[in-house]
Amino acid sequence: MWAAGGQRRAGLAAAAALALALALAMALAARRRRPRREVLFFPSRPSCTEALLAEAAGPGAAARPCPCPLPRGDCSLSRLLRHLLSARRSLEICLFAFSSPQLGRAVQLLHRRGVRVRVVADAQYMELRGSQIGLLRHAGIQVRHSQESGYMHHKFAIVDGRMLITGSLNWTTQAIQNNRENVLVVEDAEYVKPFLDEFERIWEEYNPINYTLFSKDSK
Amino acid sequence: MWAAGGQRRAGLAAAAALALALALAMALAARRRRPRREVLFFPSRPSCTEALLAEAAGPGAAARPCPCPLPRGDCSLSRLLRHLLSARRSLEICLFAFSSPQLGRAVQLLHRRGVRVRVVADAQYMELRGSQIGLLRHAGIQVRHSQESGYMHHKFAIVDGRMLITGSLNWTTQAIQNNRENVLVVEDAEYVKPFLDEFERIWEEYNPINYTLFSKDSK
Repeated sequence: MWAAGGQRRAGLAAAAALALALALAMALAARRRRPRREVLFFPSRPSCTEALLAEAAGPGAAARPCPCPLPRGDCSLSRLLRHLLSARRSLEICLFAFSSPQLGRAVQLLHRRGVRVRVVADAQYMELRGSQIGLLRHAGIQVRHSQESGYMHHKFAIVDGRMLITGSLNWTTQAIQNNRENVLVVEDAEYVKPFLDEFERIWEEYNPINYTLFSKDSK
Repeated sequence: MWAAGGQRRAGLAAAAALALALALAMALAARRRRPRREVLFFPSRPSCTEALLAEAAGPGAAARPCPCPLPRGDCSLSRLLRHLLSARRSLEICLFAFSSPQLGRAVQLLHRRGVRVRVVADAQYMELRGSQIGLLRHAGIQVRHSQESGYMHHKFAIVDGRMLITGSLNWTTQAIQNNRENVLVVEDAEYVKPFLDEFERIWEEYNPINYTLFSKDSK
């Protein structure tokens, strides 16, 4: 009888320990799974981003202080730059308008660092003066552009296939410094995955081998 | 000794039951807390939204079938309309461009249903032909507009203070039918709260009592 009682007690103790371990593991898993969530609003406070970009470019460049009078603190633009510069493997960009020199430098810097950068642009906007698209192409970055009459009006980027950056903000100085804008930074796969799929769909659709060419003679 | 053994057994059983109940409660809470997450891409598939809007307007109107030849199935526009029409108490809208007649009808319908609707618009866009803003004002809906030189470029709505609808999409027929656009539907408080705060900030800033008026004489 004692032995049976002891077995029962041991069984109950094991069940209790198991349940507690389960609860602990669930709590830890819930904590570990917690993805990054951030909202940035614009216009961004005026701020010098030279040190941030120089630091990302290499230790030698970081040594030169910028002589401009702008404050150095954190702002929405610097937060956005930091998220982009965190890329280690890949960067997909799908943008209606891209003319910000700072964001253009960040993208070129990532390309030089060996990050696989792919850019989708709107055909009409990319030809406007001040567009960064020509510079990115010149730097050897893969760019594809829209092929339809509607606008390619997305404004998103995906860092390392895990972080989605999306919102109302076109990457232009006008939008960054003057407009009311928002950018969401999201690591939940439920949002990142559909955007990655959308990027791949558009990337394939805008492949130059799929271009439809019309000549006057073929009318 | 038997009594002590029984107490120990009862104590262990109670601990095991408590731990299991805890694990179950955590699992249920995690399930219950799970917020709605959806991504809509545009252009939206052509689809008739008359039945959806008529159904939301009242049982009498729903009886009349629409004679148009468009398919009735689900599409990005109908999903967006359904999310908006789920409002019971409040709807905040902050939009650069708003000219879609279907979305305009949905907003007016919510206003008539007693939902507290507040709209923030961009001052320059709201005056263009086709804008819904005049119609919303005429229907008695509160509208405020931007007061600065930059664009009020947001494109978001908040339903009942719990659901954020945001993305690249302006609420125009051009954007819905022709552009590459995205809309995120988000119920996570970490995203909804900053957008609610941004709305209240803008709403107060664009309060007509804060207008700065200049006359030629005051130069």
